[in-house]
Amino acid sequence: MQDIEILGNISQGTDFIKKIKNKKFVFSFVISYTATCEIPGITVAGANPDLLKFTAAADAEFIQYGYCKSIDAIPMTPDGKPTPALLTKVALETASIPCFVINAGSKVIPKLPYVELGLESGKNIAHESALDQKFVKKAVENGRIVGRSLGSSTDCLIIGESIPGGTTTALGVLKGLGVEAFVSSSMPQNPTNLKNKIVQNALKRLQSTDPYDVVAELGDPMIPSIAGILSTASEYANVILAGGTQMAAVLAFAKNIGFNEKNTVIGTTSYIVDDKTANLVDAVRQISDIPVLVAKLKLGQSKITGLRSYAEGFVKEGAGAGGASIACMIKTGLDTEKLLLLTEKEYQQITSQ
Amino acid sequence: MQDIEILGNISQGTDFIKKIKNKKFVFSFVISYTATCEIPGITVAGANPDLLKFTAAADAEFIQYGYCKSIDAIPMTPDGKPTPALLTKVALETASIPCFVINAGSKVIPKLPYVELGLESGKNIAHESALDQKFVKKAVENGRIVGRSLGSSTDCLIIGESIPGGTTTALGVLKGLGVEAFVSSSMPQNPTNLKNKIVQNALKRLQSTDPYDVVAELGDPMIPSIAGILSTASEYANVILAGGTQMAAVLAFAKNIGFNEKNTVIGTTSYIVDDKTANLVDAVRQISDIPVLVAKLKLGQSKITGLRSYAEGFVKEGAGAGGASIACMIKTGLDTEKLLLLTEKEYQQITSQ
Repeated sequence: MQDIEILGNISQGTDFIKKIKNKKFVFSFVISYTATCEIPGITVAGANPDLLKFTAAADAEFIQYGYCKSIDAIPMTPDGKPTPALLTKVALETASIPCFVINAGSKVIPKLPYVELGLESGKNIAHESALDQKFVKKAVENGRIVGRSLGSSTDCLIIGESIPGGTTTALGVLKGLGVEAFVSSSMPQNPTNLKNKIVQNALKRLQSTDPYDVVAELGDPMIPSIAGILSTASEYANVILAGGTQMAAVLAFAKNIGFNEKNTVIGTTSYIVDDKTANLVDAVRQISDIPVLVAKLKLGQSKITGLRSYAEGFVKEGAGAGGASIACMIKTGLDTEKLLLLTEKEYQQITSQ
Repeated sequence: MQDIEILGNISQGTDFIKKIKNKKFVFSFVISYTATCEIPGITVAGANPDLLKFTAAADAEFIQYGYCKSIDAIPMTPDGKPTPALLTKVALETASIPCFVINAGSKVIPKLPYVELGLESGKNIAHESALDQKFVKKAVENGRIVGRSLGSSTDCLIIGESIPGGTTTALGVLKGLGVEAFVSSSMPQNPTNLKNKIVQNALKRLQSTDPYDVVAELGDPMIPSIAGILSTASEYANVILAGGTQMAAVLAFAKNIGFNEKNTVIGTTSYIVDDKTANLVDAVRQISDIPVLVAKLKLGQSKITGLRSYAEGFVKEGAGAGGASIACMIKTGLDTEKLLLLTEKEYQQITSQ
């Protein structure tokens, strides 16, 4: 597959692509919330703080219906940069991959059927502990149950997420677990200093290096939920952790609760790997010798300004867009040029409504 | 399979068993509630009305964990007649079939991850309309979404239910849709007169023969939810409607919203088919030319009184026990004698705790 680059463990990545060819795929989409996103300047979606609560639910609805029910618009910046859920939706629909939405503490309940994990939202790590310890445990336990069901009913489970502000909590968990990490951002001017300052202050509250403590203090509900899903699903099926540096945080925590590394890859977009302010591949290498599959998307060649912005450092990844695109290409044999055409068509359709 | 009897469309039933041999199975368990169950004398579980609310959630928890979290005991009558979820749990565990719990208006939320359909509980049809029309539509729409996801990720979807009082609402829907039906009961003295009286009175409120009106007036949230799941799942996969006369009501409604009859069977226990007060096979024949697969369970040979009671007219079916047993036998090749031994072992384990 010329449009999928393999980084990290190259031989395992090559085998992975081979073994999921012509197999069944399921996409699971974990939606969540951390009040950390309310810190001014932390996320591209932050122009309207009231809308942040709706981001994850709106992404889920868009993937399911092609429009949103909880908000009147498509999740898009005022100047037309669309949610990465647009790429996810096109990839899943093109490849007929079913989607299960999983609610891991989202602030707004999506208007569609979803798997409920029974968690609370994450608190702002600038001010207080992110999560009660009992919710970290519950996230892992319930994640494990869902991972067993999803993993044993498919050949390849893709896991994506939507949690605004999630790169900051990911940075916190990575640092707390001793990984030298620089996380990506949804903005070209990555507010690295702000993120580091928040995390450094939050780290001072940390009483131990126990992974459950680290996630409870610095993390968000998405991280232990996906780690739980991964831990059981990877025993039964191949798993694509679809995301950027946030999935490195999932991996760092999952390393401590156990998962099958032979069946696991990270799947992301080239915009994350090209991000000079982040070090996804290096961070992953510190945690686990697994492959990083990269969808070499061609959004920079688009005639649509909002899509080109991805290649100019905006958004970059999210809603499992990279992993879904990789799965789509493996399942259908399409390349990223064809995916771009389909994405442009979808973009035009939703903006002309 | 000598312990699976095929009734109704025999050739299609024979083909069905052949085509799901060595394939992947998923069990979905729809939990719900109708206040109709609160009518004194209507259900075996009625000795303690407060516990009725917990029945479905407790069944789901028992299948998932082997014990209940929402109540302190296993769902069992005071004299030791166990919930049919016991048979379901043994069958699913023995055959390593994953389970998805689907909440379709249960009164109590189970303490486990579940798919939320966003419905309200059903009202008592002796007094008022069962459901708001909009909830019938929502049940079908959300059921269709879940059915698409589950159906396209497996080869055979088994759908079971737990809703106390559900045979009465099933009778209402069948009568309202013009099917000559006599429904089963969880008690050997089927309170047929009581059920018929309730349904006859409720039928007087019916303003039209529109299937959505019939379900809204006389039904419960389980019926349109499973009909929705069936309608899409049967396009992608084989479907076993696991239950007795309640699944005939699902079928009667689904006939109106559409489903693939070639991929659909009813799977039940011999205790339902042997029930002289009910006419499952005949009712099904009036609706659709599909097979009825019957698990010829051997609970009557058990050394345990509570299990023998199934052969004496108590409980008979429920929680998808018949369909799960059929799937287990097809997948593992075990017979009902072996299943009985495993069920007795499980019974002894839970009662010795």
